[in-house]
Amino acid sequence: MRHDHLLSAGQLTREDIEAVLDRAAEMAADPAGVAERHADRLLALCFFEPSTRTKMSFDAAMKRLGGDTVDMGTVESSSVKKGESLADTVRVIEGYADGIVLRHPSEGAAKLAAEFVDVPVVNAGDGAGQHPSQTLLDLYTMRENAGLDDLTVGIMGDLKYGRTVHSLAEALATFDARMHFVSPESLRLPRSVQFDLHEAGARLREHTELDEVLPELDVLYVTRIQRERFPDENEYQKVAGQYQIDADTLAAARDDLTVMHPLPRVDEIAPDVDGTEHAQYFPQAHNGVPVRMALLDELLSGDGGDR
Amino acid sequence: MRHDHLLSAGQLTREDIEAVLDRAAEMAADPAGVAERHADRLLALCFFEPSTRTKMSFDAAMKRLGGDTVDMGTVESSSVKKGESLADTVRVIEGYADGIVLRHPSEGAAKLAAEFVDVPVVNAGDGAGQHPSQTLLDLYTMRENAGLDDLTVGIMGDLKYGRTVHSLAEALATFDARMHFVSPESLRLPRSVQFDLHEAGARLREHTELDEVLPELDVLYVTRIQRERFPDENEYQKVAGQYQIDADTLAAARDDLTVMHPLPRVDEIAPDVDGTEHAQYFPQAHNGVPVRMALLDELLSGDGGDR
Amino acid sequence: MRHDHLLSAGQLTREDIEAVLDRAAEMAADPAGVAERHADRLLALCFFEPSTRTKMSFDAAMKRLGGDTVDMGTVESSSVKKGESLADTVRVIEGYADGIVLRHPSEGAAKLAAEFVDVPVVNAGDGAGQHPSQTLLDLYTMRENAGLDDLTVGIMGDLKYGRTVHSLAEALATFDARMHFVSPESLRLPRSVQFDLHEAGARLREHTELDEVLPELDVLYVTRIQRERFPDENEYQKVAGQYQIDADTLAAARDDLTVMHPLPRVDEIAPDVDGTEHAQYFPQAHNGVPVRMALLDELLSGDGGDR
Repeated sequence: MRHDHLLSAGQLTREDIEAVLDRAAEMAADPAGVAERHADRLLALCFFEPSTRTKMSFDAAMKRLGGDTVDMGTVESSSVKKGESLADTVRVIEGYADGIVLRHPSEGAAKLAAEFVDVPVVNAGDGAGQHPSQTLLDLYTMRENAGLDDLTVGIMGDLKYGRTVHSLAEALATFDARMHFVSPESLRLPRSVQFDLHEAGARLREHTELDEVLPELDVLYVTRIQRERFPDENEYQKVAGQYQIDADTLAAARDDLTVMHPLPRVDEIAPDVDGTEHAQYFPQAHNGVPVRMALLDELLSGDGGDR
Repeated sequence: MRHDHLLSAGQLTREDIEAVLDRAAEMAADPAGVAERHADRLLALCFFEPSTRTKMSFDAAMKRLGGDTVDMGTVESSSVKKGESLADTVRVIEGYADGIVLRHPSEGAAKLAAEFVDVPVVNAGDGAGQHPSQTLLDLYTMRENAGLDDLTVGIMGDLKYGRTVHSLAEALATFDARMHFVSPESLRLPRSVQFDLHEAGARLREHTELDEVLPELDVLYVTRIQRERFPDENEYQKVAGQYQIDADTLAAARDDLTVMHPLPRVDEIAPDVDGTEHAQYFPQAHNGVPVRMALLDELLSGDGGDR
Repeated sequence: MRHDHLLSAGQLTREDIEAVLDRAAEMAADPAGVAERHADRLLALCFFEPSTRTKMSFDAAMKRLGGDTVDMGTVESSSVKKGESLADTVRVIEGYADGIVLRHPSEGAAKLAAEFVDVPVVNAGDGAGQHPSQTLLDLYTMRENAGLDDLTVGIMGDLKYGRTVHSLAEALATFDARMHFVSPESLRLPRSVQFDLHEAGARLREHTELDEVLPELDVLYVTRIQRERFPDENEYQKVAGQYQIDADTLAAARDDLTVMHPLPRVDEIAPDVDGTEHAQYFPQAHNGVPVRMALLDELLSGDGGDR
């Protein structure tokens, strides 16, 4: 990987991705070996939207590399509510840190930020857009459990508003995975995303019922029906409660099916799945630390950090 | 002490407590000696309720041990408001840190969390339940000022809703202290707590007036009448302003009376007490750092931290 | 400099200021040389009002010195909303850290805090009062760009409510700078500030139009018309939009004019100025880090930190 910023999964080649996952695996196996690697370096955490796992795992990743973080805090406690533009905010913050992790409600925010600053920018979610580090940890989890060759993946739930799905599908296409998208009509994968996937030669099919494809799957990736992405509460209620799985549902699956979820879940996966061999969503969340360590290491080493 | 988690003061024997207080005293006397002891270790701060002193002192304690913290942030800025269960939240967070400090509005929250994770959990307050690290710093302060043998302690104020009182009374019982509980009728120690204390062989009496017992006391522990614990504003107003002390009140006390308060205070202790020898509530708050250092050291060393 | 606290720019002599700026320049030139200088020391960040740049740059400064911070969090997440006094809050927090940085909405808050604690207190803004570390970074920026000798400075915008302006003017007087204050009538420099400046022998003039003085200026310091300082929305609207500059405005300026702004800006400086040689407001913000490093170094070394 030779990138200044990580803005979208689409900018990464298959080789880029494999290099990051390899490095993450090394770091997970030997954390002590990198515990001082980025000592004296600071990472700015700029989260314009609520986050637990993404923010905490970037924070932990930077600290596991021996570095430290400076946190912009919530929008309510910052200058943003005084009317400052994003371009100004990041141009100030680049003077306080060696890199910026940015989550923002507007699609394209990270790309805009990257045009204005010289330090590396990591897109940690931009509205309905991209969330590439989530994609990398998803791929890492799939590789650890099922390998990335000849993979059949089911992706279920909110495929319209779920940003993690769009990045993931794009990346899976580069590994030539077979993809089955399972959702209600109202939450189908957007046309534009489908178009891009077809352009990339992806093998994909759409379904409204999980049982049509469950027995074939190596991985079932479940997503939350996100209330806050819905323009209308009625529409949310109509589909909420659908597309849930439990231990009974999975009786029809292969024994080695890996069940994933970007979390938080509400009711999509019943607690009786948690104790099964299928359940990999908590390890998946934990994989955010080594994957983000590898990512930060790569980006921060680019401007002199490798010393 | 050989514990995986610290959930309640009641789980600690007299020997456990004395070991932690001894270790805290050592650390207070020689902070440089432990300044790198837990380098490379991370503690997750999960505060589902507002906190200043508990959170900051755990944060400081971990950093004084050479470690670092990752903060969940406020509930408003986290996944919790997306409807995630506590069990899910802590199962994710255990992958980001080597231990979890948890404050939560629901009684039993820390116990529940401990059942779901493998890293040590410290209960930093669970609703009207327990707050054991506060108890340890209270005992530490009493030991530094009056010793823990043959102790006569008055505990005054909100004995019904004040969680610090329940933990403290339980622990004082193991040191065979004489306890005088001073409160209005409506804020008496709950029957269930009284019952447990009697079962433990505690020597306790209840009073509605401080002057009945003040001259006998080694320690007077004053608590805030907590408005937010009251279901009814009228009831709060009725007792607010009662059970306050000032320098005049203390004229009837022994010269070596130690006055404590878990803080924050509002009007319970007049500012004219601050300058007297009795006032130990600020040192008491400061004792939170060495006591929590000792506690974290014990818990984190249990899973390989002692290296 | 031989001070226990930094409460106002007025407490600093010209020699004090030059010593801090010299030290800041050294640290900016060789950050690695001080990267472990305050290892094991903690700085408490106590921000009772929203802040991005001041808080983040103190945070970064402390970490660039090898130390760490403990953050009080927002007022909403702290004990303050339980009715605790500022004097109590800081007396507790001094036990958690080796120094306190305080921003508070009430004028005189930092001075009051300093009377109650033994650790160094830095005033990071007290209402309409002082903000001395901002003044130091402003002076640093002027020195880097125009030198501090024989300086002609225009200060434009909200001169009534802008606290940065009052500190800055006071300090510029000690360097015998010529000052031109440019503002609408309703936002003129307060009489009391003018009086103090005249007492100090300052050379100052007031204007309502920038073009009267622009060609003479070495530095143009633009400030935001702060909506939140206005008691009345109508008054805000009346002056909003006035006193803005763009590249065309600056055609009448000297080629080496330095344009500064404490940020955040809203519309006071058009984006077409950003690409010009005049624009120094982002470097100015970045200078907050070395200047605050120098300041913290001085204050923390006073009580044994220099080891």
